[in-house]
Amino acid sequence: MAEKRNIRMVVAYDGRNYHGWQRQKGATTVQGVLEDGIRRMTGPPVKLIASGRTDAGVHALHQVCHFLTDSSMDSESIRKGLNALTPADIYIRETADAPLDFHARYSALSKSYEYRILNREHADPFLRFYTWHIPLKLDAEKIRACLPMLLGRHDFSSFRSSGSGNTDPVRHLLRAELHRADEGILSFIFEADGFLRHMVRNMVGTLIDVGMGKTGRDEFLGIFRAGDRRSAGVKAPPQGLFLTMVKYE
Amino acid sequence: MAEKRNIRMVVAYDGRNYHGWQRQKGATTVQGVLEDGIRRMTGPPVKLIASGRTDAGVHALHQVCHFLTDSSMDSESIRKGLNALTPADIYIRETADAPLDFHARYSALSKSYEYRILNREHADPFLRFYTWHIPLKLDAEKIRACLPMLLGRHDFSSFRSSGSGNTDPVRHLLRAELHRADEGILSFIFEADGFLRHMVRNMVGTLIDVGMGKTGRDEFLGIFRAGDRRSAGVKAPPQGLFLTMVKYE
Repeated sequence: MAEKRNIRMVVAYDGRNYHGWQRQKGATTVQGVLEDGIRRMTGPPVKLIASGRTDAGVHALHQVCHFLTDSSMDSESIRKGLNALTPADIYIRETADAPLDFHARYSALSKSYEYRILNREHADPFLRFYTWHIPLKLDAEKIRACLPMLLGRHDFSSFRSSGSGNTDPVRHLLRAELHRADEGILSFIFEADGFLRHMVRNMVGTLIDVGMGKTGRDEFLGIFRAGDRRSAGVKAPPQGLFLTMVKYE
Repeated sequence: MAEKRNIRMVVAYDGRNYHGWQRQKGATTVQGVLEDGIRRMTGPPVKLIASGRTDAGVHALHQVCHFLTDSSMDSESIRKGLNALTPADIYIRETADAPLDFHARYSALSKSYEYRILNREHADPFLRFYTWHIPLKLDAEKIRACLPMLLGRHDFSSFRSSGSGNTDPVRHLLRAELHRADEGILSFIFEADGFLRHMVRNMVGTLIDVGMGKTGRDEFLGIFRAGDRRSAGVKAPPQGLFLTMVKYE
């Protein structure tokens, strides 16, 4: 009998043409495309488990996933074969044999996201699927003044979208930064032990209200402490969001 | 009678979804989309003249074009209206009234192109429509050693694609550089008083043969002097090419 193996993969994808990570009937998803490609190479259906789902239009520079297989293909051949079988907007960066108890979601210590904003008057046709364009000048210092409040263990219910079930709303935020890059790009960096549904996009939307002067620092703290999504700002659109790292022990 | 005006525009576009600049029946082109938008705002059909055509899949950071109109709309309203009427992969950066004798093509002193290569083993799903991916390591110094030969006034027939008629094949090349940027990006910069059909892509394809060690420096000079397209290398694919500047007096 063939030996059971656990293959760990690091995948980058441009989410613009996908209905998110999770396999769905009648929609093209990253999980679906990858599972179909693996099946073509190795035979039986496989279940690919990621560190977490990404929504439609959200990108990944470094998504981690794993699948169990009986195949005897070496991991580099799996990587090359799968890259040949999948469209160019998905790229498998690494494949390796992992311990059988490695789990892309449960073994993860932290995940990092970046959210990119094009903050200048002029749009950029090359960044339309990779940034949120906000022509109105944002006050980065006002936003930065709110970020330390988010660090540490908190109930993030105010930034959780509905439809996410009754899971524990407490998360430990390890990093919350705002950087100014070239060409009018503002970039949020968040790292946490886990994220609630739409948590980054809801935080960003509310912080943008701060940067526009619509919401003050104390008001932001009130929204955060209220534990009520309805008090928060709009949800930032998906195309500015990138899953940038998943860390394991 | 309304006064005749000449409107000069600076336009950026992501060429991936367009069959090039030039209007064609049954194909979506940048010229077609812009002319249709202008017509919707100003009434009669207009003829939009660019500094030069770009091919299918080629991008522009700074394309210059002009059109004649009787409209009394101020130029900034034309810019904003046209941006609202055109897809987000075309962006009108500037509009201004120009002298009636300004001509986007005939008045141009020089045009600049950049050609971007992703030169590393791993593909990047975010750069697939904006670079030519060459996994084999290129020797940038060997390429750079050939670039000075191209400078000045020369017959560029070796780098002209067929189907370009009997126009004068002599062009004056003002800049020819190769830069190494972050993340394995190699970037060619060319500036000339004008370019023949596919001239940049044919030069780049032949220079890549030099960077791979297939063609030596003397052989490159021989190809250039031969005046025969058939002796040159492959034509580089369109997606790495960007029209970056058009200069006027």
